[in-house]
Parts: sequence; structure tokens; C-alpha cells
Amino acid sequence: MKNTFGTSVAVTLFGESHGGAIGAVLDGMAPGVPVDEDFIAHQMQLRKSVGALSTTRSEADAVEIVSGVFNGRTTGTPITFIIRNQDQHSRDYGELAYKARPGHADYTAFMKYHGFQDYRGGGHFSGRITAGLVAAGAVAIGALKMNNIHIGTHILSCGDVWDRPFGDLAADIDLLNSSEFAVLDSEKAEQMKAVIAEARSDGDSVGGRLETVVTGLPAGVGEPWFDTLESVLSHALFSIPAVKGVEFGDGFAIADMRGSQANDPYLLDSGEVRTAKNSCGGILGGITNGMPVIFRAAVKPTPSIYKQQDTVDLSKMSETTLTINGRHDPAIVHRARVVADSITALTLCDQLALRYGTDWLANG
Amino acid sequence: MKNTFGTSVAVTLFGESHGGAIGAVLDGMAPGVPVDEDFIAHQMQLRKSVGALSTTRSEADAVEIVSGVFNGRTTGTPITFIIRNQDQHSRDYGELAYKARPGHADYTAFMKYHGFQDYRGGGHFSGRITAGLVAAGAVAIGALKMNNIHIGTHILSCGDVWDRPFGDLAADIDLLNSSEFAVLDSEKAEQMKAVIAEARSDGDSVGGRLETVVTGLPAGVGEPWFDTLESVLSHALFSIPAVKGVEFGDGFAIADMRGSQANDPYLLDSGEVRTAKNSCGGILGGITNGMPVIFRAAVKPTPSIYKQQDTVDLSKMSETTLTINGRHDPAIVHRARVVADSITALTLCDQLALRYGTDWLANG
Amino acid sequence: MKNTFGTSVAVTLFGESHGGAIGAVLDGMAPGVPVDEDFIAHQMQLRKSVGALSTTRSEADAVEIVSGVFNGRTTGTPITFIIRNQDQHSRDYGELAYKARPGHADYTAFMKYHGFQDYRGGGHFSGRITAGLVAAGAVAIGALKMNNIHIGTHILSCGDVWDRPFGDLAADIDLLNSSEFAVLDSEKAEQMKAVIAEARSDGDSVGGRLETVVTGLPAGVGEPWFDTLESVLSHALFSIPAVKGVEFGDGFAIADMRGSQANDPYLLDSGEVRTAKNSCGGILGGITNGMPVIFRAAVKPTPSIYKQQDTVDLSKMSETTLTINGRHDPAIVHRARVVADSITALTLCDQLALRYGTDWLANG
Amino acid sequence: MKNTFGTSVAVTLFGESHGGAIGAVLDGMAPGVPVDEDFIAHQMQLRKSVGALSTTRSEADAVEIVSGVFNGRTTGTPITFIIRNQDQHSRDYGELAYKARPGHADYTAFMKYHGFQDYRGGGHFSGRITAGLVAAGAVAIGALKMNNIHIGTHILSCGDVWDRPFGDLAADIDLLNSSEFAVLDSEKAEQMKAVIAEARSDGDSVGGRLETVVTGLPAGVGEPWFDTLESVLSHALFSIPAVKGVEFGDGFAIADMRGSQANDPYLLDSGEVRTAKNSCGGILGGITNGMPVIFRAAVKPTPSIYKQQDTVDLSKMSETTLTINGRHDPAIVHRARVVADSITALTLCDQLALRYGTDWLANG
Repeated sequence: MKNTFGTSVAVTLFGESHGGAIGAVLDGMAPGVPVDEDFIAHQMQLRKSVGALSTTRSEADAVEIVSGVFNGRTTGTPITFIIRNQDQHSRDYGELAYKARPGHADYTAFMKYHGFQDYRGGGHFSGRITAGLVAAGAVAIGALKMNNIHIGTHILSCGDVWDRPFGDLAADIDLLNSSEFAVLDSEKAEQMKAVIAEARSDGDSVGGRLETVVTGLPAGVGEPWFDTLESVLSHALFSIPAVKGVEFGDGFAIADMRGSQANDPYLLDSGEVRTAKNSCGGILGGITNGMPVIFRAAVKPTPSIYKQQDTVDLSKMSETTLTINGRHDPAIVHRARVVADSITALTLCDQLALRYGTDWLANG
Repeated sequence: MKNTFGTSVAVTLFGESHGGAIGAVLDGMAPGVPVDEDFIAHQMQLRKSVGALSTTRSEADAVEIVSGVFNGRTTGTPITFIIRNQDQHSRDYGELAYKARPGHADYTAFMKYHGFQDYRGGGHFSGRITAGLVAAGAVAIGALKMNNIHIGTHILSCGDVWDRPFGDLAADIDLLNSSEFAVLDSEKAEQMKAVIAEARSDGDSVGGRLETVVTGLPAGVGEPWFDTLESVLSHALFSIPAVKGVEFGDGFAIADMRGSQANDPYLLDSGEVRTAKNSCGGILGGITNGMPVIFRAAVKPTPSIYKQQDTVDLSKMSETTLTINGRHDPAIVHRARVVADSITALTLCDQLALRYGTDWLANG
Repeated sequence: MKNTFGTSVAVTLFGESHGGAIGAVLDGMAPGVPVDEDFIAHQMQLRKSVGALSTTRSEADAVEIVSGVFNGRTTGTPITFIIRNQDQHSRDYGELAYKARPGHADYTAFMKYHGFQDYRGGGHFSGRITAGLVAAGAVAIGALKMNNIHIGTHILSCGDVWDRPFGDLAADIDLLNSSEFAVLDSEKAEQMKAVIAEARSDGDSVGGRLETVVTGLPAGVGEPWFDTLESVLSHALFSIPAVKGVEFGDGFAIADMRGSQANDPYLLDSGEVRTAKNSCGGILGGITNGMPVIFRAAVKPTPSIYKQQDTVDLSKMSETTLTINGRHDPAIVHRARVVADSITALTLCDQLALRYGTDWLANG
Repeated sequence: MKNTFGTSVAVTLFGESHGGAIGAVLDGMAPGVPVDEDFIAHQMQLRKSVGALSTTRSEADAVEIVSGVFNGRTTGTPITFIIRNQDQHSRDYGELAYKARPGHADYTAFMKYHGFQDYRGGGHFSGRITAGLVAAGAVAIGALKMNNIHIGTHILSCGDVWDRPFGDLAADIDLLNSSEFAVLDSEKAEQMKAVIAEARSDGDSVGGRLETVVTGLPAGVGEPWFDTLESVLSHALFSIPAVKGVEFGDGFAIADMRGSQANDPYLLDSGEVRTAKNSCGGILGGITNGMPVIFRAAVKPTPSIYKQQDTVDLSKMSETTLTINGRHDPAIVHRARVVADSITALTLCDQLALRYGTDWLANG
């Protein structure tokens, strides 16, 4: 379904990096959910530059909501978010129209769109397009909170620095959602920033891992075949540019275990069925079991680097080299985390609306 | 979309482990594709027991095609595959109706279906339901071969034994597709079988990793947002029971690289644009670049083990223990590979039909 | 989405008139709905021959349910209905392989499937394929009844004979659902049967109109754009072979009214908002208003007639004539009504599940 | 799928009559289609007021395209059309917040959205929202023209005045598409305008019928079950506010025919298979036969009339009366025709892209 994702609650993304505007349409959100424009602005800010770590492109990223909100609440009809592009330096990209940047979508876009794509700044493939997702996601996150469902994502690793694992989930989620640089161990945060700064000084970039936890999901959400909760979440997560791996619970490590280690024994906790550990990441048979849902995403290093790279000039079909100038981030993992939160929230709102009906999210 | 997957080429799965029949409906396949019933039987056989390694349940798994095939070719209308259940030992499972088996979907199915689910043998969650996928997938694999698109999956790891990486792809794919136990290095195959046998003798089980390669895909397939090729393939792969992780190209390892290592430089090879290496797994911006598509899936160990496990009796809401008897496999990774091939083929047929039209697959 | 219809509750149809079997998969029905096999058989009977009026093809039309039902109730997983084809006279159709029958889908199927379609007896386009719809619809009708939602369809017109309009809806619906020939005025029923018999004796056929009423639907079901209730119901109804028109409420006649006649004034009836009349057919802005939903479908005369007709031989691309032999009905409108009931029920179950959640239908 | 319609080519509508902006996102259009902003403006103009016949609301209806178009051509990525609302008289509607206007969606919106909907001017249900459809449709119409597929709609009837039937299709389509008031017989046009003026002077309104013809569609487009071309077109047409009936070919009249009258005999015309007449409206078995596709839609009279009407005050749950002031049209059928053209074009682009692939539309 292309640039629309979701069935009952669906988001449509539009825009190019250097076009008139980017944005999103969020459809199917329950009527009556409060829309907090300050929270939207806060989330937009998290997606943007973090001090010296990020791109020097400075966009106001002001979000205009032109439909679907009335008297501060969702109406139940499509909510449209428009973000004007302002600080465009299209001349930076002009010469790159036919020189495919390694690691970017330039070549694949060319093959798909036969040269008609807006190639400036990555066009529709730019990470900037995630701004619409973050705006829509902010409404979804708000709706989930009303239902006591909380999402938190930390930078599990960046370069060779690893954050501590999740501990007290409620406290950790609070900490992350108030942090600009989402790391649980503040010492590790400084080390990660140093790693990013070092990459920048080398004209290079670094990647990392995001780890997300969701608390409060009821048991029974997801489908046995094809729309397993893992399927729909991974579908969403792999839409984030730069994500190359997704794993749930113990993920790839579970492949090395024996069944007696991997299985999560059941027990009763205050009359509720729980598991003694959570290797399955809160999902069995594609369906939630009421435990926290945990997953990780691998984020590749920013493909924009300042080093000279080999490439092909598609207009001449000749080999050449290219050196990228202009502004770009030496890492995106710290900015991607709010995108992961957003798309997770949108996906969960859809699953919950499908299971419990279109009004359920507003009744929390 | 529940038990149906795909847009232009779609598969619908049905059945329970101990019901009357299981099967699949494959809709949207181009008219005129030859249907090779021997190849279907061959694929069904790969999914089944491998000597002493697997379950003692012996199903004929005869596939009856009741629609959509005429004079040995697809008609373009829905193809229905019916596989009768025969060797059912439902009494083995009766006592487990309310004792949720750790690692299985028993508890989540109970929460989703409120006790109305057919719990016998895992019901609709049984790995047996993949038989329908394999039958439908055999037709899809045949259609792709007509277009010179080939798929091969090997067991990359089982327990602590690792197969060699892919080398000559055409030769490796041929080797795998003619092997009952899909390992590239025959010595490693024996070691993996020993690992499985050892787990069995311990009343335990082991997991593993599958690695799949697809050759021959044209550049330009996939969508920038939401239906990236990674998104739709991972959506499909996470539908396979026991899969807990999916990664493309260098996957999670790419998170530890610098951009200068991760980027794949472009070059010209006999006038064709290629990349010097393939860290991106043949997909950039969600779209194929014409290089082989490579991905891996983590398969957890079989949750059915003979050791006593802690659980909860859902009818009494009391803690208890359970010991599983009956037949079950100490590993499923070697059986899951044909399921991975099948669902990959179905997903790619859908993507290709969306891009090039409903008849394209038959014109190869 | 081809041969699958519905989002939360979806039905997939398969089969050809002269293939091994036809049937349907009903997915997404709430778990716990009783499945009454006698009622299914009753509905199947209604779809079949009515005495001397209909085709002489005599199929047992025994419905086998091979999945999704356990202990007499729906499990929540796909319900598969299989109906074996038995009484096939394929030799009747052999010579017609390339002679397109006027009014049938022979030519359009040929152009779509390039000659690979199973042309025998209309193949996948045969009215016989509706048997699967009727089986699935019977479960849907049962689920709606649990929620006090009732559907009744009468033959409003056949040839030039018109039935009386709906009166006391509850009584009329009861009458129709216990009638083999669904007419409210028994005298008109005899006249319609005479019209059909006369057409038969002329080697010709007649058409008619179906009028359907649905009571008990809550207000607030349907969507403003694209998935208006009229849109989804007409989408379903136009899938019934031979339907060429669909109208809601006063339908085409409303085009000749003035607004002051067409508008339905609101009033209070025992504290409930009702309308003084029902020109809108229970739907405004695409959404139910709590009044009965009423619509009509135009059913064309059976295209199979015994008179000689002009056609083209597609194998020779030459003009020719054809005279259809074999068995066929001089009218299908009386058989189509149970198909209209069935597809209406399936569509409404989907809309209700989307609005109120996947379990709602079972809680009646 | 709510406010999104289509599979390969999809349109998403957003906005409320008195919100910040309305618009549409058109996704999946082939890359390389020229976008003619003058033609968009022309279509927008057709949808607007026609002299003294229509509402006095004067909107510039300037369409801003903020994405998906580059160097005057489609890029293949989502095209977003934004139309600012300017001339809003919200005070006209304030008192009507809880007084449901008969014939409007006020009450059904209230029941669906629980009072959170933007009720001003009909909100998301306003006919004004079709402006986004018309903008998107203009691009679709342009793409079809490149492929020699042409669409024309005339006002078949308005009040009791009927236009002449279609004659020379190419000439008639040209005539209609250059006419502000789309009637084939200019004398009838004047009579219809008089009917509308008379209704206005009576404080009342009138309805009418639209008849659309599509030429140039290849044979073989559409699906046998569920996505018959009639199903998808009627799905689209019933989304147009005020449409209460849709019929194809001879439509409801075919119900009164005998098979020998209704069937369209085949013949050869310059080596092409054609039918001697076109009672089926160019569609058999849900699939095009290469003849022109013809259908009609019934448009109800504008529900806004100046006469006093009975209604219910939903805030007090008491009966009351209401008299609508403000501006409104005494007829919408003449404005709805460009909406019918637009949604027909969008639906056909989707069907063609599904059948022939995503790039086909640009290759004409």
C-alpha cells in the first residue's frame, strides 16, 4: 500500500526534502483524543539536531495541523500535518543528480522512477520525511498514554559503546522520554557523543542499535499468520531509513539457545499470568502475552560521509568518484529513536483499534 | 489482514493441526504458469521429517489442488490446495487444554480467542499449517524460475555449528535446493545433525539461523515508505512460527561499522551498474539495486521439550508443572528453510506483479 | 483485492464450475459464534433449484467445514467451506471453448486470462461459485441474528410482475426467510412463476429486481469517504453475477424529487431519534442513522437462452452463430436473493467488527 | 480503508469545510506524467459555482501542489494538493451544532464521532471536500488521455428535463469537457437551468442523474469476484455525497428485459471483437469487453433548503424545527459531474496500474 500504512488507524506520508512541504495524514484515530501541540513540538525537537552532533540544516519544523482537530481534540476524521521546507540549499545537490551516492537510495530511486524523481537532498527518501511520522506519532503516543500504554527507546549501542539494559521500566521510560540523547547510563551517553564527534572529525559516520520497550499492552493483540505483531512492527520499523535488522525478545541470540533456556515459564503474580523471564519479548504465536514487548533495530551509519567514494555517473554510464559536501550528520541513531517511538505507537494504535474498535483509544 | 497476505498475488492460509484439513488459497498468480505437481510434492517432503531428526508424526501430506489449475497450468483464478489431516493423536493433547505450554501460543491464543480456539496440537498455530504455505510457495517458486529469479536458503547455524558463507551463488542455490538438509558444507551438516541428536537425547531442543539469497531480481522493486522490500519480506518472515529476528545484508553487524565500511561503492560490470560489495543486501531505500538480496532469520529452538516446566492451569488459575509427551522435533530450523523459501517466493511474486502487472510472471 | 473481500471479517472465494471443488474461506469471524449446519444446509437449498423453475443440474451441495469450527462454535480462525463438484457434464461445454456466449463472461475471461481460464460451464465466473458465499454468509447471518440484526430480501419484480412493498418489517423478514420463493404477496409469487415458465417455454429468460431490508443496525456505522456503507454494500452486491444496478432508499427516484420531498425529517420515538420516513434508506453521509437500511439490486435475465445467437469464434476470429444446449435456468433472480442476503451479512459483519472490535459479534 | 481509496494508485482525502485547509494525497501515479496546472484550475472551476445557479460562497480554490511533482511531471511519489479555506462564515452554522439538518450527515456524524466532529458547514462531510478529489482527478484524467482513454459525463436529467442520449462519443465527450454546464442538447441545458432557478425561488432544491461514458479501455480489466469493475466504480461513485443509485449499461431497465433482448451479440468490426449493442455497459463478468463503459448515478436534491423542517435538538433530545439560512445551492448535480469524472479517472488508473504495472500509465 505504498506511502500509507495501517488498516483502521493509518498514516500517509508525503513530501520531498527540497519540495514545498512535507507532512502526513493520520486517519482513523478515535474521536475525542486530546491533541497537545506542545508535545508535538517536543517530539519534533527530539528528531532534530542535537547540539554539535547533527546537521547544520536548521529548519523551524513548525507543524501546522490543517484538519481533523477541533477544539483541541481529534474529530475522528483525517488529521493533516504540514511542515514547510524552508532552509533548502538545492544547489548543494544539483551536481549529484546522476552521481549515485553509495549507501543512499539515489540509484534505486533512479531505477524505480526512471529519472523523474526529485533527487534534491534525497527527495522522498530523505530522513527529513520522518518529520511527518513524528508529528502523527505524537498524537498516537498521546492516545496510548491515555490507555496506560507507554513506549521508550534507548540507544543500546553507538559505535562500540553500549548502554546498560532496561531495568525499572516505568522509570527508564520516563527518563528516556525526557532526554534529548536517549541513553539510560549518562556516562555512556558522553562516550557515545565522543564516538560521534570522532567520526565527524574523521569525515566518517557511525551506526548503532535502538532498543524499544512497550508496557501496558493487553494480552491477545496480534494475529497468528501474516499479521503477527512481530510482522506488523517489523514492517513499520524497516520503513525507517537505515534500519537493516529487527529482533524481538532475545532475538538472534535465541537461535543459540536450547529450548529449556529459551522458553519462558508461566507463573502467577497477584493473580495475573506472567512469565518468569521474557525471552520471547512479550509475543508468542504473533500475539501479545501481557508482558512488556521488547525489540531492537539495527541502524546503519549515515551514508553521507566526506570521504571520496567510487560511484557511477548514470547520465554517462561511466565510473567516477564523488565527494559529498554540504551538511550531514555523522550519526542518525540518536535522532531515529523518536521515529522508532512514533512508528511503534502508530502501529499499536492500529492493532488496538482493529481488536477493540475504532473508539477504544479515546476511552482511556 | 489476518490470514491473507499479499496485494496482487495473495495467499490465504487455513486449518488446524487436528481439524479436517489444512491448506491455502493462492490468488492472483498470472495465468499460464505451469504447475508441477512433482515439484510441489518435493517441497512438501522437504518440510517433513528428515530421518531420525524429526517428529514421528507421519502424514502423507498429499496435496489436492481443487481449483485454479487447468490443463497443467494456472488459470489466473484462485488456486486452492487441500491437505487432509490423517495421523492425529488428539488424545495426546487433551489434558493440555488449559495448561499453557511455555514458548507455545497456547496462552496467547486463549487470551485472543477466549477459550474457543482448537487447542489440539497447537491448532491454527501449529507449524503444520506451514504445509499450505509450502504448497502455494512451490507454484510461486516455479513462476520466479521462469523469470530467472532463484532462491536458496541454508542453515547458517544450528546450535554452535556454523555453515560456510555463500560463495558461487548459482551453484550454491542448486546444491541447497537438491539437499534434504540444507547446508553448504557437508561436514557441517553432519555436525549439526549431531547437535540435534544430542538435544533430543537430553529431552531438549536447539535453534538456528537461516540465510536466504535471491538472485535475478531486477533493480527498482519495492517502495520508499512502509512497503520497503525489507518491510514486506520481514512481515512475511516473522509470520513463520519461531522466527524472532530478521536482518538484511550485514544486518545487525552494520550497526558497528563506520559509513566508509558500510557503504557499497558502485562500479560498472559489463556495462551494468553493480556494487563492489553487498553490505546493504541488495536493497537501498527499500528498493532493489539489482544485486542479490540477502537476509537472515533467527529461529528459536522448538518450544516442545521433554523436561518438566513451570506453567499455569488457566481453568483453575493455579500454578502447576507440565511435562510434554508425544512426538515433537528437537529442531525445526532445517524444516523451516523450505517455509522461508516459500514465503519469500510468494512475497516477491506479489511485488513483481504490482510493479510489472498481473501477467508479467507468466511471460518469462 | 481480487477474490478476497473484507478487512476485519473477510471472505475468499475459490473454485470453478467443473473443477474438483468450490468453496470459501471466512476469516475474522468472532470466536464463539455457534455454527448451525442445518441452517447452512437450508441456505444452500434456497440457492439451488426451485422445482421446475431452475436448472436440472442436481448437486448435493454438501458443505464440508474443514477448519475454524470446534465444538460447534467458531474458533476465530479461518473457516473453510468445501463443496465438491459432482454432477459435471463437461462435454456439454467442450465445443463452446472459443465461442463466446453473449451475456456471459466467456469473452472477457478470454481477454483477461489469455485462454488459460477453465472455460467449462463458465468456470470461475459460474453462478455456482456463489455457493461458497452462501455457506460463509450463513455463519454471518447467524452472528448478526445474535445481535438482533435481521436481513430479508424479496423479489420486488420479475418480468412485469411486482411484489407488494415491505410492510411490517419483522413479520416480512420472517416470511421471506422461511419461503423458498421469496415474495411477500403469494399471489404475485404464482404470477412470477408463470412468467418464468413462459420464458422457459419460449427458450428465453427473464430478469428482476431484489429488494433487501436490514433491521437492527446501530447508528454510526460506515465511513464518510470511500467506505461509505453504500460504497461497501454496492461493492459487494455488484460482485453477484448479473447485478447491473444498485440503489439505496428511494434510489434513482430521488433524483426526480425536490429537497423538501427527499429529506427525511427527524422526530423522537420513545426517546429515540428516528426519521418520519426513510427516503435515504437508513444511510446519510455514508453512515447508518439507526433506521432500517433498504436497497435494491437489478438482476439481468439469465444470459443462457436456447435461441440462436450471433457470436465470434475466438480461435478462428470469424463470425458465427451459437445455440446453447444443456441445462440452465430461465431466471436467476429467485436464486440470487439468498446470495444477496449472504453478501450483505458478510459486509455488515466486517463493518461492525471494524467499528466495535473483533469480538463484538459474539457478545450478542 | 476509510479516507484512502485505491490499491496501486490511491487517493487520500482530508479536510473540513471550515478548517484550515482541505486537500488530497495522490499516491502511486506513474512517474513522468505531465502535470498541467491550468487543467487542474479548469477542473476546479467546473466544480465551483456556475453563475447564478450556485452557492454564493466564493473560494479562490487555488490548488497548491507541495510534493510529488518535479519539473512539471509526476515523480512517482505522493502528490499532495492543498486548498486553503478562506471564505468561511462559521457563525452561520454555530447555532446548528446540535440541530441535525434533515438529509445531511449531521446526525450520523454525531453518532459516529460522539460530538467531537467539526460540525461547521458539514465539516468533513461537506461537498467542498470533493475539491481535493477533483484536483487529484485532474492528474488522473491527464494520465488516461495519454493512453487514449477518455471520460465524459453529462447531466442526463435534472428535475423533469432529460438530455438527449450519447451519440458520437468522441464528439460528445469533447463537447462536455469544454462545457461549464454539461448537457449535450443546449436547449435542454436552458430548461434545466430554469428548473434549478425555479427551485431556488421556491426555497427548495432539485436532483438529477449523471451519465458517464469511458472510451478506450482495453478488454480484460476488472476481476471476477469482489473487485469487478462495477464493484470498484460503484464503490467510488457512492462516495460522492448525494449519490443514491448507480447502474451500468441498461441498468435497472435490464431487469425488465428478456435474455434475448439483454444479451449483446458479438460481431467483428475491422477484425476487432465488438458487440452489436451495449446493454452490458462494456462490462461482463466484472471485466471490460473493450466496448465503451457506460453508467449512471442518481444524485439527490441538495438537502439544504430554505423551508422550515422538523428535526431534533441532540443536546436537549427534544423535537424542534429548523430553518437553514446562509448560502447553498438549489442543485448540485451540475457540479457533481466533474467529481464523477475525477473519481472515475482515479479508479480506472488504479485498475490499469494493477493490471499492467505501475509505469504503464506514463508510457502512453
